Amino acid sequence: MSKPVRICMAGAGRVGKNHSNALVRHVPGAKVVALVDPAAEVRSATAAQFGIEAGFDSLEEAIDRVEFDALIITTPTFTHKALALQAAAHGKHIFLEKPMALNLSECDEIIAATRQAGVHLQLGFMRRFDPEFSAAAQRIEAGEIGRPMMIKSLTHGPGLPPPWARDISVSNGMLAEVNSHDWDSTRWLMGSNYERVYTEVANFKGPANNVDTPNFYDNVMVNLRFESGGLGMISGICPCGYGYDARVEIYGEKGVMFIGSLQGQHILSATNRDTGILQPVTRTWPERFAWAYIYEMEHFVDCIKKDRQPRVAGEDGRWAVAGVLAGTRSFLEERPVYLKEILESVEPVSWQNTAQ
Amino acid sequence: MSKPVRICMAGAGRVGKNHSNALVRHVPGAKVVALVDPAAEVRSATAAQFGIEAGFDSLEEAIDRVEFDALIITTPTFTHKALALQAAAHGKHIFLEKPMALNLSECDEIIAATRQAGVHLQLGFMRRFDPEFSAAAQRIEAGEIGRPMMIKSLTHGPGLPPPWARDISVSNGMLAEVNSHDWDSTRWLMGSNYERVYTEVANFKGPANNVDTPNFYDNVMVNLRFESGGLGMISGICPCGYGYDARVEIYGEKGVMFIGSLQGQHILSATNRDTGILQPVTRTWPERFAWAYIYEMEHFVDCIKKDRQPRVAGEDGRWAVAGVLAGTRSFLEERPVYLKEILESVEPVSWQNTAQ
Amino acid sequence: MSKPVRICMAGAGRVGKNHSNALVRHVPGAKVVALVDPAAEVRSATAAQFGIEAGFDSLEEAIDRVEFDALIITTPTFTHKALALQAAAHGKHIFLEKPMALNLSECDEIIAATRQAGVHLQLGFMRRFDPEFSAAAQRIEAGEIGRPMMIKSLTHGPGLPPPWARDISVSNGMLAEVNSHDWDSTRWLMGSNYERVYTEVANFKGPANNVDTPNFYDNVMVNLRFESGGLGMISGICPCGYGYDARVEIYGEKGVMFIGSLQGQHILSATNRDTGILQPVTRTWPERFAWAYIYEMEHFVDCIKKDRQPRVAGEDGRWAVAGVLAGTRSFLEERPVYLKEILESVEPVSWQNTAQ
Amino acid sequence: MSKPVRICMAGAGRVGKNHSNALVRHVPGAKVVALVDPAAEVRSATAAQFGIEAGFDSLEEAIDRVEFDALIITTPTFTHKALALQAAAHGKHIFLEKPMALNLSECDEIIAATRQAGVHLQLGFMRRFDPEFSAAAQRIEAGEIGRPMMIKSLTHGPGLPPPWARDISVSNGMLAEVNSHDWDSTRWLMGSNYERVYTEVANFKGPANNVDTPNFYDNVMVNLRFESGGLGMISGICPCGYGYDARVEIYGEKGVMFIGSLQGQHILSATNRDTGILQPVTRTWPERFAWAYIYEMEHFVDCIKKDRQPRVAGEDGRWAVAGVLAGTRSFLEERPVYLKEILESVEPVSWQNTAQ
Repeated sequence: MSKPVRICMAGAGRVGKNHSNALVRHVPGAKVVALVDPAAEVRSATAAQFGIEAGFDSLEEAIDRVEFDALIITTPTFTHKALALQAAAHGKHIFLEKPMALNLSECDEIIAATRQAGVHLQLGFMRRFDPEFSAAAQRIEAGEIGRPMMIKSLTHGPGLPPPWARDISVSNGMLAEVNSHDWDSTRWLMGSNYERVYTEVANFKGPANNVDTPNFYDNVMVNLRFESGGLGMISGICPCGYGYDARVEIYGEKGVMFIGSLQGQHILSATNRDTGILQPVTRTWPERFAWAYIYEMEHFVDCIKKDRQPRVAGEDGRWAVAGVLAGTRSFLEERPVYLKEILESVEPVSWQNTAQ
Repeated sequence: MSKPVRICMAGAGRVGKNHSNALVRHVPGAKVVALVDPAAEVRSATAAQFGIEAGFDSLEEAIDRVEFDALIITTPTFTHKALALQAAAHGKHIFLEKPMALNLSECDEIIAATRQAGVHLQLGFMRRFDPEFSAAAQRIEAGEIGRPMMIKSLTHGPGLPPPWARDISVSNGMLAEVNSHDWDSTRWLMGSNYERVYTEVANFKGPANNVDTPNFYDNVMVNLRFESGGLGMISGICPCGYGYDARVEIYGEKGVMFIGSLQGQHILSATNRDTGILQPVTRTWPERFAWAYIYEMEHFVDCIKKDRQPRVAGEDGRWAVAGVLAGTRSFLEERPVYLKEILESVEPVSWQNTAQ
Repeated sequence: MSKPVRICMAGAGRVGKNHSNALVRHVPGAKVVALVDPAAEVRSATAAQFGIEAGFDSLEEAIDRVEFDALIITTPTFTHKALALQAAAHGKHIFLEKPMALNLSECDEIIAATRQAGVHLQLGFMRRFDPEFSAAAQRIEAGEIGRPMMIKSLTHGPGLPPPWARDISVSNGMLAEVNSHDWDSTRWLMGSNYERVYTEVANFKGPANNVDTPNFYDNVMVNLRFESGGLGMISGICPCGYGYDARVEIYGEKGVMFIGSLQGQHILSATNRDTGILQPVTRTWPERFAWAYIYEMEHFVDCIKKDRQPRVAGEDGRWAVAGVLAGTRSFLEERPVYLKEILESVEPVSWQNTAQ
Repeated sequence: MSKPVRICMAGAGRVGKNHSNALVRHVPGAKVVALVDPAAEVRSATAAQFGIEAGFDSLEEAIDRVEFDALIITTPTFTHKALALQAAAHGKHIFLEKPMALNLSECDEIIAATRQAGVHLQLGFMRRFDPEFSAAAQRIEAGEIGRPMMIKSLTHGPGLPPPWARDISVSNGMLAEVNSHDWDSTRWLMGSNYERVYTEVANFKGPANNVDTPNFYDNVMVNLRFESGGLGMISGICPCGYGYDARVEIYGEKGVMFIGSLQGQHILSATNRDTGILQPVTRTWPERFAWAYIYEMEHFVDCIKKDRQPRVAGEDGRWAVAGVLAGTRSFLEERPVYLKEILESVEPVSWQNTAQ
């Protein structure tokens, strides 16, 4: 076999672990050679778990001290631009977790830098690599349900996001941190860009969770109109408590297709007529998308080896960010927002504090 | 057994037949004594099918010539007010199909007339009597999923509605004729009234079906905010082609509940690895809600016999009409509409031609 | 409508109530005019519940005092022959619950008596009228899964049968009292008679339930070979505790068909990641086969009105009894038993005490 | 990481490819260093697909020319004993595909040889490593459904086995080649050995497939009694055409548990009311048991590294062979066969031609 692609991980947290696991155990063509995270304790634990030999506080150090081909960025969103620009400047290929960045100008800088450096950029929309999502996408594109008319996509997660991820002044909140996948999937599966967005939000569990962040919400419902004339809905709930829930319903002129299920393992049990039938729920995103995470890493490694363009790249990340911005502005201003309002004025976003 | 409740049917079409079937075959406490429909041929066929002895062109004739206790109104919406007022004036109890009427002033007239006459008024929201919907409602009310945060309700029907039912100038269109059930169910299951509504519509199949009615739409997606702070979504597709689809997902602080299924009979088959597993779909509303139609008729007959107030009455019908008006105004004016805008000005609706 | 068919019920217990309910509430062409049961208290309660005016200790009295057209027999199996013969002698049509009788000579006497009297005889195999079983049967007969190769049929019931029904010296035990439906369904759906039978039994819960009846079993597994060369399996568990379970899997040369489900109402809920997803179970046979019980009664009444032969009659009942006898002999003698052994010698059954 | 375990594959066919895929792509602790198969063309193709550098006609050559730690045997059953003995003699750990061998004396020789050589022996019962089967087993052992009373296990495969695998004179036929997994799973999940076995077989598709092998069957139904008093059923159909079907139902004193499903991907579609709802079927065993194959290889490699006894070993393989022999004798002699008959006389099997 050819020489393995050498990878540096930026971020030793949950997503960093998840991708390290996929790479180390299931992608023989890759070798994780370094791990960057300023939190030394977490870094050491992750490095030990996956046998990563070199650990650093900063990407700069890693670049100086270790040879590698690609950087996988799983750090908080507000760090994405700086890390991506630095990596591109040193000719490293980049796998960038969603959401791509905080606003469109950051997205544009990242895209420009990777183009200029001639490196590949893949976005972390792993649903595109999920066997169910991708089979469904192919069947839809082949016309099985006719021209798509309406889509409903949801991501409901069991736990409360970290403080920065629920504060729209530093992160764009749940619409970005949880529902980025829905923004990408609806656009992908409908085969059309969103044109107009209307959003309602609610805060049900904030008080009980001692969250007093301004504009915090834990429930969101977005109404979409696509350029094709199609309609859509995205919902987010976090924390939802009952499991990890990621499903799509898409309605075409000829029929409907349902993708995904709340059902976990195929084990049904019944021991009591009053309780009824029990079945395990899908508990977590690593469980739900285990193969998707392997396949997206295989794809990234393969694109580097064969010098091919990743299937899901900067433009896709930028569109998802645009949707997030339109959706957020909608609930703040209590009105439908056109994507063209967002796309035509790439100035800093009013509700963000992007001084950092 | 006590003397049967004598019933006159107004309307010999699909819904009239459906209710006649429930009454004649499954509600021994009732007797259908008359059928009113100006379309003589349809009337004769329905009368023959269900052994109804007396048939008339108008309600007036029926009142003059036959003794009966209650009127079941299944005629087009624009006829509801006149028939209900006439029935009330003669002391007849009324079962009124959804949507209750074209606007709030009509609703108010009907409510006032029945109160004044001291007759019972039941609205045709049969989902309240469906074993699954009603069991779910009880479990939600008992706190099983905690305080409701979000609801999604859909009604997608297989066929194209009749011309009057898709023309908002005479009917309020699909939001009223198809989605009235969703307006009622979401308010019922959330235990809260809607506060604000935003609607997107699309017209995908109109051209192929030679529909050139202004403002016609065959896809609708409504975003709801409830007084409780909860969020909601209603979708409608007609014709959807693939079956009759009526499902609810409701998310509370403690968990989720799904009501209904697209699955019809429990017969799975597999004869080909490429085709996969097949299961019958729910084809029609009489099939999906067979027991609900029987139970709502039993309830109506029982309320008359025992002089009790029906569980679903004029106020419920009026709220559904208010939602429909807010939803329709929203897509016409491309903005979120508050229910208070609708409730505070009970003037004729701008897009309706209510000269008839 | 024509004059209702007048019916006398023999048996006021659970099955008698179930059929009275179907007739009184859902079969307008019938009128239940009398109820026979020597247990006066049960009889009065059932009569009151369904508005049956005349109650008697014995069929003789009923025949003397009330005019009726048909008798529905739901009493214990060991009483079937005497009641059926008496009814036939007085020209009454007969609906006879399963199992038909204790042995083949009793079956033969019943068949002969009804033929001689020219009355109709319908057996209580309601699965033949279940919408799912009957649709599946039609599809199988139309060739959808090809020539049937193998069938698996089960009936597991939640509760412990009454003492007489678990004592093979007076009833043929669970194979007869619970699994009669499986004997009929497998033969019907395979389109072939059984040729050879092998049975294993187990007694797991008897001791805890203080059952010390000789040869008592609460688990049974039957291996079948059909005349067609096809194979089959019948299983019975009673009490199974977890619900009422009646399902069939049938495998043909072209594919498989599954009939029925343990799932009750289409209400899924999830409130806890450890518990998972919950769905109501099918709890009881009246719930599972509600429509089947209505349709079998409609069919019986219709056959009387139109003087037609019932779709499921004496021969079907006799075959099920033959299967039961072969299955019972098999586990007693620990060997496969050919049906011809049973069919060729219609002498009294060795393990039965038929002195009564 | 520690030095990888060096593996030689014996067999380059479907199962050999499947295990090579698991090892090469998903078990970083292993390295496949050699492939043995006398069929040079197949061997080259498999070697090329998985980057295996050394290929040989015989195990002898591989042992002479390449250093390795373990042998994975996926060749036809009649070759198992010779290969295993040869490997053990050279101190190689052994992973042996099911069925273990043709008869009990072969099993005993293999067990003795591995013990004497001090090498590990793991049997290819991958269901023990399937996330669903193993979770279910743990829950059953923890008492969730109470003491097991009855089990039903099936394996139905889409295609016709190769000629040697359907000829009981050289292979023990479908009961061994397809249903070995069921023999192992039923014993494992019931927590008890089988005591008595009765089998019926049928040949439905042989003629159309030009199979004229004596005693060929393509449908089998086994009735089991366990030492615990529990009952069981195993069914096999091959070719079944409709998919790959491997499911278990197990009934305990407290309730039931269902393991597995015929359902493949969670993609439901509906485009036609007459066709109904479609869902992909599980098509193949590599698809159904993808994770099980990875985990059983991880376990084997891990046991070698840590010098631990594999969880599923020679005794388990021997018990499955004993079941197969009892089941085969049963249908040949048309009587129930006790396991003790098989276990007490370990002479050559009457229907086998073991001259090879």
